[in-house]
Amino acid sequence: MSVPLGPGLTCDEAGWLLVERGWDPDRSVAAGSNFLCGNGYLGYRGTTPEQGPDEFVALVVSDTYDCADGHWRELTTAPNPLFVAAVVDGETLAARSAPEVETSLDLRTGTFGARFRSRVDEAELVVEVERFASADDLHVLAQRWTLRADAEVTVEVDARIDDRIWSLNGEHLPDVHLAADDTVLTATGTTVESGVEVAVAARVVGPTGAVTVPAGGEIVIETTAAVVSSNDVDDPSAEARRRAGAAGYDERAEASAARWAEIWAAMDVTVEGDVADQVGLRFSAYHNRICTPAHTDRLPIGARGLSCQAYQGAAFWDQEVYNLPAFLFTEPEIARSTLVYRHRTLDGARRKAARLGYDGAFFAWISGDTGDELCPDVFFTDVLTGRPIRNHFNDWQMHVAPDVVTMIERYLDVTSDERFLVDHGAELAFEVARFLHSFVRYDEWRGVYHCIRLLGPDEWHENVDDNAFTNHQVRKALAFAVETHERLTADHPDALAELTDRIGLRPEEVDGWRRVRDRMLLPQPDDDTDLIEQFAGFFELEDVRPDEVRSRLLDPGEYWGWPNGVAVATQVSKQPDVVMLLWQQADAFGDDVARANYEYYEPRCAHGSTLSHAAHGMVAVRIGEIERAHDHFRRTAMVDLLNTAHAVVGGTFIGGIHTAACGGTYQLAVNGFGGLDVDGDRLTIDPQLPAAWSGLSYPVRWRGLGLRVRITGDAIEITADHANDASVRVAVRGVELDVAPGATASG
Amino acid sequence: MSVPLGPGLTCDEAGWLLVERGWDPDRSVAAGSNFLCGNGYLGYRGTTPEQGPDEFVALVVSDTYDCADGHWRELTTAPNPLFVAAVVDGETLAARSAPEVETSLDLRTGTFGARFRSRVDEAELVVEVERFASADDLHVLAQRWTLRADAEVTVEVDARIDDRIWSLNGEHLPDVHLAADDTVLTATGTTVESGVEVAVAARVVGPTGAVTVPAGGEIVIETTAAVVSSNDVDDPSAEARRRAGAAGYDERAEASAARWAEIWAAMDVTVEGDVADQVGLRFSAYHNRICTPAHTDRLPIGARGLSCQAYQGAAFWDQEVYNLPAFLFTEPEIARSTLVYRHRTLDGARRKAARLGYDGAFFAWISGDTGDELCPDVFFTDVLTGRPIRNHFNDWQMHVAPDVVTMIERYLDVTSDERFLVDHGAELAFEVARFLHSFVRYDEWRGVYHCIRLLGPDEWHENVDDNAFTNHQVRKALAFAVETHERLTADHPDALAELTDRIGLRPEEVDGWRRVRDRMLLPQPDDDTDLIEQFAGFFELEDVRPDEVRSRLLDPGEYWGWPNGVAVATQVSKQPDVVMLLWQQADAFGDDVARANYEYYEPRCAHGSTLSHAAHGMVAVRIGEIERAHDHFRRTAMVDLLNTAHAVVGGTFIGGIHTAACGGTYQLAVNGFGGLDVDGDRLTIDPQLPAAWSGLSYPVRWRGLGLRVRITGDAIEITADHANDASVRVAVRGVELDVAPGATASG
Repeated sequence: MSVPLGPGLTCDEAGWLLVERGWDPDRSVAAGSNFLCGNGYLGYRGTTPEQGPDEFVALVVSDTYDCADGHWRELTTAPNPLFVAAVVDGETLAARSAPEVETSLDLRTGTFGARFRSRVDEAELVVEVERFASADDLHVLAQRWTLRADAEVTVEVDARIDDRIWSLNGEHLPDVHLAADDTVLTATGTTVESGVEVAVAARVVGPTGAVTVPAGGEIVIETTAAVVSSNDVDDPSAEARRRAGAAGYDERAEASAARWAEIWAAMDVTVEGDVADQVGLRFSAYHNRICTPAHTDRLPIGARGLSCQAYQGAAFWDQEVYNLPAFLFTEPEIARSTLVYRHRTLDGARRKAARLGYDGAFFAWISGDTGDELCPDVFFTDVLTGRPIRNHFNDWQMHVAPDVVTMIERYLDVTSDERFLVDHGAELAFEVARFLHSFVRYDEWRGVYHCIRLLGPDEWHENVDDNAFTNHQVRKALAFAVETHERLTADHPDALAELTDRIGLRPEEVDGWRRVRDRMLLPQPDDDTDLIEQFAGFFELEDVRPDEVRSRLLDPGEYWGWPNGVAVATQVSKQPDVVMLLWQQADAFGDDVARANYEYYEPRCAHGSTLSHAAHGMVAVRIGEIERAHDHFRRTAMVDLLNTAHAVVGGTFIGGIHTAACGGTYQLAVNGFGGLDVDGDRLTIDPQLPAAWSGLSYPVRWRGLGLRVRITGDAIEITADHANDASVRVAVRGVELDVAPGATASG
Repeated sequence: MSVPLGPGLTCDEAGWLLVERGWDPDRSVAAGSNFLCGNGYLGYRGTTPEQGPDEFVALVVSDTYDCADGHWRELTTAPNPLFVAAVVDGETLAARSAPEVETSLDLRTGTFGARFRSRVDEAELVVEVERFASADDLHVLAQRWTLRADAEVTVEVDARIDDRIWSLNGEHLPDVHLAADDTVLTATGTTVESGVEVAVAARVVGPTGAVTVPAGGEIVIETTAAVVSSNDVDDPSAEARRRAGAAGYDERAEASAARWAEIWAAMDVTVEGDVADQVGLRFSAYHNRICTPAHTDRLPIGARGLSCQAYQGAAFWDQEVYNLPAFLFTEPEIARSTLVYRHRTLDGARRKAARLGYDGAFFAWISGDTGDELCPDVFFTDVLTGRPIRNHFNDWQMHVAPDVVTMIERYLDVTSDERFLVDHGAELAFEVARFLHSFVRYDEWRGVYHCIRLLGPDEWHENVDDNAFTNHQVRKALAFAVETHERLTADHPDALAELTDRIGLRPEEVDGWRRVRDRMLLPQPDDDTDLIEQFAGFFELEDVRPDEVRSRLLDPGEYWGWPNGVAVATQVSKQPDVVMLLWQQADAFGDDVARANYEYYEPRCAHGSTLSHAAHGMVAVRIGEIERAHDHFRRTAMVDLLNTAHAVVGGTFIGGIHTAACGGTYQLAVNGFGGLDVDGDRLTIDPQLPAAWSGLSYPVRWRGLGLRVRITGDAIEITADHANDASVRVAVRGVELDVAPGATASG
């Protein structure tokens, strides 16, 4: 039995296999992203083997940043090693034109499938495809292509590396060199600006050229391919050939599936009672995992992962706030390496700060391999006038800097990883504190520090002052920097001395951080209404709802935001910063405040960002609005599967997987409904399930210990791994339990 | 002999009489403004008596601010008491349709003239009109209308108060009550929001109704009219009737002309060698005088004076920087009362500061009778989208506050009016200093105070930081406030004690002003290029010229400025703030700096403001570029006469007389070419005449003494008034002279 999810889209009852029937060109951008094969090193879009660049085929390779058009630095898309086409009577058998098409993604092993049936004269021809990106050898892609015919037919089989490349912003590999030896095809090219050599190799096993298929017979083409760049090895071409030829399809498939089993063991959450939610959650976990370069601490998590080149294969604040926390209780080493990435790219952030006239480190709004700012000054176009719009995402949306630091604090709370603090966290915190101290401006008259000219998470309202989210995050980051300095002074004086010397830190700088921490203007709940103003003057803006604002559009493709969009002079937000604040600093405000602000801001929010629903869902859970939280969950989990977001805004392609929504979905399931948190040296579990969920179960990895939480109705069961070397202390709805290795406790 | 000025426009050789031939509907807005009769209390547009509201007839009355449309507060236009129409065979004799039309303005007496010739059947009919606003009784308008016929003709003469009213923004007098007694007609109405009663009375002398004119005969209608409001007297209707009936046309004309003779004696500048420059200069002096409410210290000088309702009959920074200085050496009591106006409206400026979260007094960008901000948040419309544009003239263009204070300093330098300082200037300076201290923001990291989020005189670049003009003006205003405090401490301790007590001034506030004065970020000339950057980041903007920017317009009516106009991302300015700075703070920078910046900024300036050329001209004189200065002079003097400015920008009507250009023209002639200035206790005269000017002569009134300066070629002659009670000390090209009463000295 298949379970319907949306038009043409179903899944199996176990919630592992996604199936899409039919071929809708309007969904081709989304479908190719949704059914992506990937592994954090590469992404291969869910397209069929005969397709080409006009149907958004892409092999996106990490660590290949290049600027080909003088404007956008982005990842390189490589030649396609999995191209296979069958031509009968001059016609290519194509999914696009087949009367019956089915594509699928088996989340359990990350295996893409396709099946399409065509009729040529008297013969019915069926093409079947199976493909995966290896979770075992990250350079490897493998594909099995099968053609079956019910009547004898002669086909021309073309299996090769296709060097026609879909690229968003310029040709990164202007000269691709194709070569072949006895067994392996190769395509090599060098990126136009950064000079990275990218090599793709494919071993094609099976009959090519003119092939006669007997009635009831089949042809099989197995391609094992590899991608390697000169950022990996000195001779990427040789290495690609070696890997492509090292093993056949079945051997590769087995090794990859085994690795996927381990990954799912660490992160799989099961939902009972709602298969759509189950598969949406798995889809999110899958994509959050394959967008993450878990194999290295040198690379960012892209806002669209490796599903296409959109958002430049680069990290935004989403990385820390949405993607990273989904690993904190599953594979905390990934959370760590994500933060180490920020440390490795500190010099880029220092260059940005210096360029803009600040001290310390100001993280790029769009951060690639070096940490230098990748966000162009101009990227939107006013659809009404054709004029470029100068947005200030890169210089005014500075909350990314404190956001990274507050996530360091969160990482330490969960992991207690003091070594990280000493080796990386302290330097990050200090350099950001320096930046913040140089950013804030003091108002002598009122004796407060202001943050001026901001862009908060609500990106439609630029150029605002004293944004509630930003100011509170700034204060929290400064407080953490001061605490870290005190902690290192007490516990790690030698390390502190070395760091102080290396970055030239002066004692009066730390005093400055203290002063700003203590006198920062922090928007507070109103005494009467409990409302926190999103930024200075927000409540004076026109108080209308999103539908009214939408009705004012002259063109459906208009950008709603600054400087002239329909939302700018109104209280309608892309996502409300105050709800973000209530999520990220939940402890700082009481339930009444959380409720008042959720109720005020939610109806005024257009949810114009895929980041919005997860934040709303977390706050809705906190105030006991579980069914509304469930609605937010569904919207964030299904944004890509149901293709509800825009692929193009203001003339800029922003398609691809919304990886932050994926991370947010996972957090909302486990930390929201599942109620998982940490309080000092114990885990806390305080679940509240949606009515539709009869059960929820999730694994936890915490400070070297493993356990699984199972919630069924009111019952909560904690099972500690046999392999644990100590008891786990867990507070279940406030009742503390110690769960011994192998034991199960109920709360 | 008449001297051509422009299409259809001439003047007499003496440079007093302006004549326009023909009737061009496209020039009707400008012509009606140019040939305005006015006296600082009222303005009556230069239209013919048979015209109505569709041809921009207007009687604009000062001190009648009213908001009728919920958006714009502006002066009221009153019913027209000078309406006269002659109807022959059902056709009104109209200038619009006459084959021959001539209108004129005799600047010497402010007398409007019109003459138009029509043919009806066999008869040639000539209408002649003479009209003036009394300079003697400011409530009075008088008009003589004559109809001559060369063949017998019967006309229907209609002379009355026309209650059809042209108003820009709503009906201010929705119910006009018309009445008549034996001799006088009256029209009374009450403004819709402010409740000001406005009464217009007209005594019409002459035959009305059906009148037969014999061949070679004439009919004459003399109208003496008066306008009075309830802000003048309790019973404006009675007062208007009284004044309308108090004297006939000739008696009124004689009294007014006598007063004009006194006014011209105080201000008339003669130019030899160029009649067009002569008349342009007189035109400017005339309008600068009649736009000024010299009879009161309660009212502002409007940016369009009383020539129409545009710019709300309200003062901008133009009042202090452009209009006021033209009186400093002619009628300094007018300069004084203009500054007293700022003092009287301090409470409005205090309310604005408080509303925006500042301390002290923040002068309105558009200041009417109360000093409250009249500038709406939204006034331009994006012509490409029809969307309103939120400009920040009212909250970001804060240089108006220091501009007023620096002009107080200038006024004191010229007049040495210590009483003014004690009674008004000190409070103004202190309250502005308070505002400035609360406005600036301290950057602890660099130890400097910034001005953030500014709009400088170059209004196309909003939201800029550390604008050179603004920051330097802020520092100068603070320095003056500190000096004033020190001076009062030493010389007027009782007055200071009273003021300190009244405004609650604390000693630490003055310390704060000192601190900001000493640590203000002051953009300085570059060591290599001598260039001063207009604002932080200006030199990073696209370096193109105005023609290139103009070529990018999609619609000729587009607003060029913030946020999305074609000039915003470029170095093209509406007027360059650095040139303004070099004019207003000439002493602060050397000649090389002045030259480098003039040469850099002038070609990048679109002269999109009528304020621009005067500033350029003053700096051009200073660096010896006299012919370029002369070109600037002509452009500023002729802006209205040649109608070179736009009457509508971004959908907003901004027609009318550019009174700031008028004041700028006068300053450029006398203080620029004429080289008049003051240095401590002596006048300084250091002229540089354009090649086309063989001579220049101007009157000076200075510290109670009168003199006249005559420059002919290299010769400079100073004649002191007989009535002087002391010698005048004058430094002529650096050589000091003492000129005794009645004596003439040559330099």
